[in-house]
Amino acid sequence: MTNSDKKNDGPGQSLDDLREAIDSIDEQIVSLMAKRQKVVKRVTEIKKARNLPVYHPSREEDLITHRRSQGAETGLDPDFLEELYRVILRQSRIEQTRRMKQTAVLPGGIILIVGGRGEMGRYFERRFAEAGYQVRILDQADWPNAQSLCDGIHAALISVPIDQTNAIVHKLAPYLPTDAVLADITSIKASPLTAMLETHEGPVVGFHPMFGPTTSSLDKQIVVATPGRQLASCQWLLDQFAAWGSVIVTADAREHDEIMDLVQALRHFASFAFGQFLCRKNIDLERTLDFTSPIYRLELGMVGRLFAQDPGLYCEIIFASKERRALLREYIQSLQENLDMLDTNNKDRFMAEFSKIADWFGSFSEQAMRESTYIIDKLIERF
Amino acid sequence: MTNSDKKNDGPGQSLDDLREAIDSIDEQIVSLMAKRQKVVKRVTEIKKARNLPVYHPSREEDLITHRRSQGAETGLDPDFLEELYRVILRQSRIEQTRRMKQTAVLPGGIILIVGGRGEMGRYFERRFAEAGYQVRILDQADWPNAQSLCDGIHAALISVPIDQTNAIVHKLAPYLPTDAVLADITSIKASPLTAMLETHEGPVVGFHPMFGPTTSSLDKQIVVATPGRQLASCQWLLDQFAAWGSVIVTADAREHDEIMDLVQALRHFASFAFGQFLCRKNIDLERTLDFTSPIYRLELGMVGRLFAQDPGLYCEIIFASKERRALLREYIQSLQENLDMLDTNNKDRFMAEFSKIADWFGSFSEQAMRESTYIIDKLIERF
Repeated sequence: MTNSDKKNDGPGQSLDDLREAIDSIDEQIVSLMAKRQKVVKRVTEIKKARNLPVYHPSREEDLITHRRSQGAETGLDPDFLEELYRVILRQSRIEQTRRMKQTAVLPGGIILIVGGRGEMGRYFERRFAEAGYQVRILDQADWPNAQSLCDGIHAALISVPIDQTNAIVHKLAPYLPTDAVLADITSIKASPLTAMLETHEGPVVGFHPMFGPTTSSLDKQIVVATPGRQLASCQWLLDQFAAWGSVIVTADAREHDEIMDLVQALRHFASFAFGQFLCRKNIDLERTLDFTSPIYRLELGMVGRLFAQDPGLYCEIIFASKERRALLREYIQSLQENLDMLDTNNKDRFMAEFSKIADWFGSFSEQAMRESTYIIDKLIERF
Repeated sequence: MTNSDKKNDGPGQSLDDLREAIDSIDEQIVSLMAKRQKVVKRVTEIKKARNLPVYHPSREEDLITHRRSQGAETGLDPDFLEELYRVILRQSRIEQTRRMKQTAVLPGGIILIVGGRGEMGRYFERRFAEAGYQVRILDQADWPNAQSLCDGIHAALISVPIDQTNAIVHKLAPYLPTDAVLADITSIKASPLTAMLETHEGPVVGFHPMFGPTTSSLDKQIVVATPGRQLASCQWLLDQFAAWGSVIVTADAREHDEIMDLVQALRHFASFAFGQFLCRKNIDLERTLDFTSPIYRLELGMVGRLFAQDPGLYCEIIFASKERRALLREYIQSLQENLDMLDTNNKDRFMAEFSKIADWFGSFSEQAMRESTYIIDKLIERF
């Protein structure tokens, strides 16, 4: 507190008085937050009793719309209120998830994780154990005990590298109880699903969790589920992901794979090739960062993060199938078609191409602009 | 609202009732926020009258400490309350800054913005006007009045397309008072700086603001300054950017341009080519978004946002110089060298390349991983 702060500018007008008024308002705000949390706790109990998911997107959007309009009426910036409520709602989901995950959707369930000593295997081992499941691990050295490990299990979750998945499925199947769910978390789905359906007579489902083992919370994380057989008998496992806060997207295995060609392989390959070029040119990364706009820092970060990860994983993703390699070839050829435009300094052609692509992106580009602007603001705030 | 939501589990216990209770609490919270903003407004008036700074770190830390301990007492997560109050305090600073930034570094200064009806021109017009400068605009139609517009100005800021900058500099120079600062905000620097030094005898400086006209605050945004002549006489203009919260990076014009070849042209071209390929393949954007991990959503957003912007701006950036076009050619050729690896399914080569690039990125990739993981968490929170 400085001297000037204490100077009184009139009745009820000193900085001290105003700060006391703010403190009193803040105390009331925090009390209301605590009251809010108690009501949310009761909501959680009902959701838990009825097996309802934690995340209810339309209720959240509705709530935010109301707070935004109340803000506009009272002279508050609606964007500020939205940001505030995103923080509040996220905390609310985390609290709810924490309370809900103590209980397994299948109480007393036994889960076998095949490849349980890999990074994703250990990740799911922790999750299932926290939720109260009995978790068993079958890794490379454990095959002599495969039969006893499989006895009485309710689900086997295959978590091994893509190119070993099918072989492991074939090796495991003879030991499985007929009524156990056979599931995998491989990032391609058609071929493992076929292998599982061929070798196991009971319930089969394929998963692709769209996140890595460094993800701190499953909150809002997407898990793609590709149904195989007896989906009703697999439902508890889907519900378990939902109870952790994940969003389940159900898809046909082949549709999933086609989309992943683009979402994973093409995007990762483009980042790989960009990093490769920076390396070949041996550019001075540090100095370029001094000059960077947040957007370039973020884009370079997206490329850089690839190379902090396991080369084997990306190798598997990029070389997963002949179709995928053909798509990457097409991408390179598409780039080549711009050579002539650069050679001839053909700005008109660039402008025409740009407009065509912008039309094709349509409203997505505006949405992308809004979303990435928000993210850039966050980046500036933080670094 | 589904049927199960409406099911009543006991007096005052239905989900509907609880949600109404939450809505009522939220209404009170927002009312208190509005009340808080009114008190902060009075604080700002006092600070302005006494020339006190907006940011008062010890007061903020103090406030957060109190809210954290109140939270702990009432069963709320203190980290959550801190996050909430960081959002509230940031908004409070933005509001206060908006009200206080009326003071110019050069009081009574007159600024001429050449190209003032373009997006960046209008952006700086608003900034300078808000700060209390007298702002004049010289756009295409205003050349007949060039002499009277230039009389008595303290600085002329050139804000026109890259390929017109030099011509406009030559056209403007004869009207300029000798002691006026001549500055530009073109995204290339060597050639405009030479033109300004050749035509104007007084103080000259080049700027490259590393942000676009949609940026809501200059807080922490980078502005590259390339000194031309009589830097001391230009200092007030640099100080004005700093007063707005920008970070000034001083560089040689040629070094700036070389780095921008990579930071701007290469990165934008890579995004352009990626969007071009998605458009050519006519992929189902909406459906891929259903499947997206936050990282893909962000990466696709980076590509998409390009196409929400002015094609002319990107055309100028990409075709700015022969050297730049040669670099883009090299990039395409570098990609082509991967064709053989894909054709022959050569995983070993991919692994070797990947490791080499990872070594080259060195510690940056770990840093990128950390930063982007933080950003991804923010993205999940928001969408």
